[in-house]
Amino acid sequence: MTHDLEKLAALRHSCAHLLAAAIAHLYPDAKRAIGPSIENGFYYDFQFTTALSEDELSNIEAEMRRILPTWTAMSHEEVSADEARARFVDNPYKLELINEFAADGQTLTIYTSGDFSDLCRGGHAENPSQEIGAFKLLNVAGAYWRGDEKNTMLTRIYGTCFSTQEELDAHLKMLEEAKLRNHKILGPQLDLFVFSELVGSGLPLWTPKGTLLRNLLDSYVWEIRQRYGYERVEIPHITKKDLYEKSGHWDKFKDELFRITTREGHEFAMKPMNCPHHTQIYARKQWSYRELPQRYANTTMCYRDEQSGELSGLSRVRSFAQDDAHVFCRMSQTKEEFLKIWDIVQEFYGRLGFALRVRLSLHDKAAPEKYLGDQERWEYAETMLREIVQEKNIDWFEGVGEAAFYGPKLDFMAKDSIGREWQVATIQLDMNMPERFDLSCVNENNEHERIVMIHAAIMGSIERFLSIAIEHFAGAFPVWLSPVQVQVASVAEAHIPIAQELAGMLKAGGMRVNIDDSKESVGYKVRSAAKEKIPYIIIIGEKEKDLAQLSIRVRGQEDQLVISVPDFIARVKGE
Amino acid sequence: MTHDLEKLAALRHSCAHLLAAAIAHLYPDAKRAIGPSIENGFYYDFQFTTALSEDELSNIEAEMRRILPTWTAMSHEEVSADEARARFVDNPYKLELINEFAADGQTLTIYTSGDFSDLCRGGHAENPSQEIGAFKLLNVAGAYWRGDEKNTMLTRIYGTCFSTQEELDAHLKMLEEAKLRNHKILGPQLDLFVFSELVGSGLPLWTPKGTLLRNLLDSYVWEIRQRYGYERVEIPHITKKDLYEKSGHWDKFKDELFRITTREGHEFAMKPMNCPHHTQIYARKQWSYRELPQRYANTTMCYRDEQSGELSGLSRVRSFAQDDAHVFCRMSQTKEEFLKIWDIVQEFYGRLGFALRVRLSLHDKAAPEKYLGDQERWEYAETMLREIVQEKNIDWFEGVGEAAFYGPKLDFMAKDSIGREWQVATIQLDMNMPERFDLSCVNENNEHERIVMIHAAIMGSIERFLSIAIEHFAGAFPVWLSPVQVQVASVAEAHIPIAQELAGMLKAGGMRVNIDDSKESVGYKVRSAAKEKIPYIIIIGEKEKDLAQLSIRVRGQEDQLVISVPDFIARVKGE
Repeated sequence: MTHDLEKLAALRHSCAHLLAAAIAHLYPDAKRAIGPSIENGFYYDFQFTTALSEDELSNIEAEMRRILPTWTAMSHEEVSADEARARFVDNPYKLELINEFAADGQTLTIYTSGDFSDLCRGGHAENPSQEIGAFKLLNVAGAYWRGDEKNTMLTRIYGTCFSTQEELDAHLKMLEEAKLRNHKILGPQLDLFVFSELVGSGLPLWTPKGTLLRNLLDSYVWEIRQRYGYERVEIPHITKKDLYEKSGHWDKFKDELFRITTREGHEFAMKPMNCPHHTQIYARKQWSYRELPQRYANTTMCYRDEQSGELSGLSRVRSFAQDDAHVFCRMSQTKEEFLKIWDIVQEFYGRLGFALRVRLSLHDKAAPEKYLGDQERWEYAETMLREIVQEKNIDWFEGVGEAAFYGPKLDFMAKDSIGREWQVATIQLDMNMPERFDLSCVNENNEHERIVMIHAAIMGSIERFLSIAIEHFAGAFPVWLSPVQVQVASVAEAHIPIAQELAGMLKAGGMRVNIDDSKESVGYKVRSAAKEKIPYIIIIGEKEKDLAQLSIRVRGQEDQLVISVPDFIARVKGE
Repeated sequence: MTHDLEKLAALRHSCAHLLAAAIAHLYPDAKRAIGPSIENGFYYDFQFTTALSEDELSNIEAEMRRILPTWTAMSHEEVSADEARARFVDNPYKLELINEFAADGQTLTIYTSGDFSDLCRGGHAENPSQEIGAFKLLNVAGAYWRGDEKNTMLTRIYGTCFSTQEELDAHLKMLEEAKLRNHKILGPQLDLFVFSELVGSGLPLWTPKGTLLRNLLDSYVWEIRQRYGYERVEIPHITKKDLYEKSGHWDKFKDELFRITTREGHEFAMKPMNCPHHTQIYARKQWSYRELPQRYANTTMCYRDEQSGELSGLSRVRSFAQDDAHVFCRMSQTKEEFLKIWDIVQEFYGRLGFALRVRLSLHDKAAPEKYLGDQERWEYAETMLREIVQEKNIDWFEGVGEAAFYGPKLDFMAKDSIGREWQVATIQLDMNMPERFDLSCVNENNEHERIVMIHAAIMGSIERFLSIAIEHFAGAFPVWLSPVQVQVASVAEAHIPIAQELAGMLKAGGMRVNIDDSKESVGYKVRSAAKEKIPYIIIIGEKEKDLAQLSIRVRGQEDQLVISVPDFIARVKGE
């Protein structure tokens, strides 16, 4: 995290306290739970005695504004568990936390501003009254205590704050735009995916249109990868515990693993990632250095036992497809392989209209215990990655301490069409897994040489990528990605055969065409195709009977396109 | 099962008894477990005091031959559990079975021929000495008691028998041929798939070549399906228990389900099939009759908690990909949809060189309690299916009692290149699941009309299909399916650039080409490419330097093919 982001997070954390202070004044019976800063803002969870309406937010804001000038500092004190329990004796949420922290042997601290004190780990603005330039409460939502749907449903108040009013205004404008693009609403509206109560939350089902979209994106990644010498592999989605004990995932991902006990009593797990399985494909033979790199690509599903309260549309799911790839190569080949993956990432995101910047994620020399592998290999690897970002004409920055424990990485950040930045692809060097699985090649001197692995997903989770892409395009996908490219609508029953003839011609030209031969009016048909964000709409009535010239409504344009059928086919092929 | 097959099974069951009788004479300390007839033969499991070698089989056969003339009949008697326990007091396996059967309230019977008696449910030849025309013991294998690897490992003796020596000879010849084609040996040898101890048995990992093969087959099915109006969908591989409670799978597949308890304590399962998930995609909206059929195709993995002892190569696995499809349509549309799927099946299996025959699987009117749905709909459906097989020019037969509980079906049997018959594709009408999930369309009269579903996998399990296809082709796949179509081998180092140039030309022509530029001799290179069953081998030496004419070794042909590069590319494209 950069210094600026840390400062903003501290500001927002203090603003969450300010919210809780206002609630304590206005709703003395409400019990507060937790209130952290989050990306783009903060929240605080409360248990109210009666339901809170969003209309009440302006009143709460007014109280916050009234209090803020008095918060010129935040003091803190360390307290014993008993003292903390005494102070929060009426609050079961704080008591639960106090007991846990105390059992963990953690120091308990209480932060105070004005008349308000809260159990808190710290990380605040030094002088909230001066630093919190502008804030706003945004909305109210239900949230289970600790994200677990077996617990009490609390009331979560979301808000945000900035150093200046201008920043807040820009952010609120972006939020307005984002609301119109919300993939959770647009997705089902465009008939891309659906959730089922019976299947469960966090488990999206993909309709024909949504599946087409996924496949088009995945095929595009594969088309690029093929040019760089990748080959596809396929793996089962479960494994014996043994694989993850060896890889280290059993310990590290224990809580997030979907674990299975077979009828014979064996322990299995559903895969949370693909690298350990892929090592077993590499390990099927002893490779010569002449046969490396081996580049395995595999679009396949991964599973994580996320808590119900953490699930959100396609952004956070329990099962997601990764367009994963792993390169098995010699350390001396890593730069070349990184550059190839870089090209794949740039081609893919460039075509979709995302601007990229890169974080060079390095290890923290001050905390060597957090990383595995010898210093010399780290130096070599980080120097090589720094060379790459310096050679490339791209906006980049360093993230010290952002490396994985097994190696440094390049993280790509994509800026979407309304200015939000998302972490997307990453290229990660892994010096640990080949050690654990004893992966090697026989080198020029006929010696066994330890190889390295490169993790190289392009979209990452296709679900999460689609949540970003749907909002980036506001559902109006470019023609090559549109599930339906052309809507042919008949005016009256007599025109249906001509509409069908035209649709046949366009389909033969490789287009994805839908016919609307319902009995609705032309106006209705145009509006409904526009709502589906179909790029081209063609009305077939008396005037269009001979199909000599088409009049085409083009998405986002005022004027109709007047064009012959062959010219139209050629034009769409070009897109 | 037809009458002939029943007779053969009875014969083999009696021959298993004969084997056990011979063992009782020759190895009086051996304890016998179970000995059923199986497809193509029988086995009997024993616990020997010392390991049995296959060399001893001929001696056991001789003893069986000595006994057989005395087995002119098999008598049976019903016994009480206590009496059965007394008779098998020294045999823990029989005692375990006796206790289970008795607890189930089953009648216990003992069958006797000559001096040999065995606990047995019956189903025997009336006069073994006359009916068992020829038999042979085939091999010895380890087998866990009840297929569970936590139990004792027993010794399984496999054998087969027929009414005549000619039939046995033909079968043994086929087994010899089958041995050379064994996919468990050929698969890893051709580098198609691999098993890993760490991942576990029954969970194959697919190498680049094997994955290419899978994808080529799957793409071919999809290419055909697309012409018939199918659309692809995608689903998560897990679900809440609720889906399977509603579909009925939770009860029916309880033992074979991989079940998961999430960290929040919810019960989930990995999907053993895809239909319940697909219903949830159909159910996302109310459909008009004008929008049906909806045809959803989905190649996706399914999971079954098979017992370790039941696993076998690719034939029986714990995780397999299905090229599944479901058609949601009106009952009045089923014939047309069945015919379309029939065409897809015929095109696919025809291209792969399998001869098909069809079983019309009907319900058993004598056992109406085994089926769901009203008689009228069954009559309608079965009449429709009978019309189809009668209209088609194909070898077909009726299988009364072979229908699923939810509807009648057409089962396709494919005869492979050495005459073995495998049940492959099935087209199943399902009148039950749409009831359970309340699936309907709005018909011409504006009423809700119950729809039906058709299950229509073409390969079924891709793993099982590949076990059949690898053996059918003995690994020598047709050119379009061969992972590597052309091997270009250089004679000396000087020829490598020319080999690369040629490979580039062939790749640009759409071929899958591999270069062998190792330092091995030409003879070695030709032999190793032949062992990989690559269709075309091209040697590049001094004579071939200008690439004017290629001399190509064609798999399975004596004479080399002399041809120009463009003509060769055109020829392979044609294949």
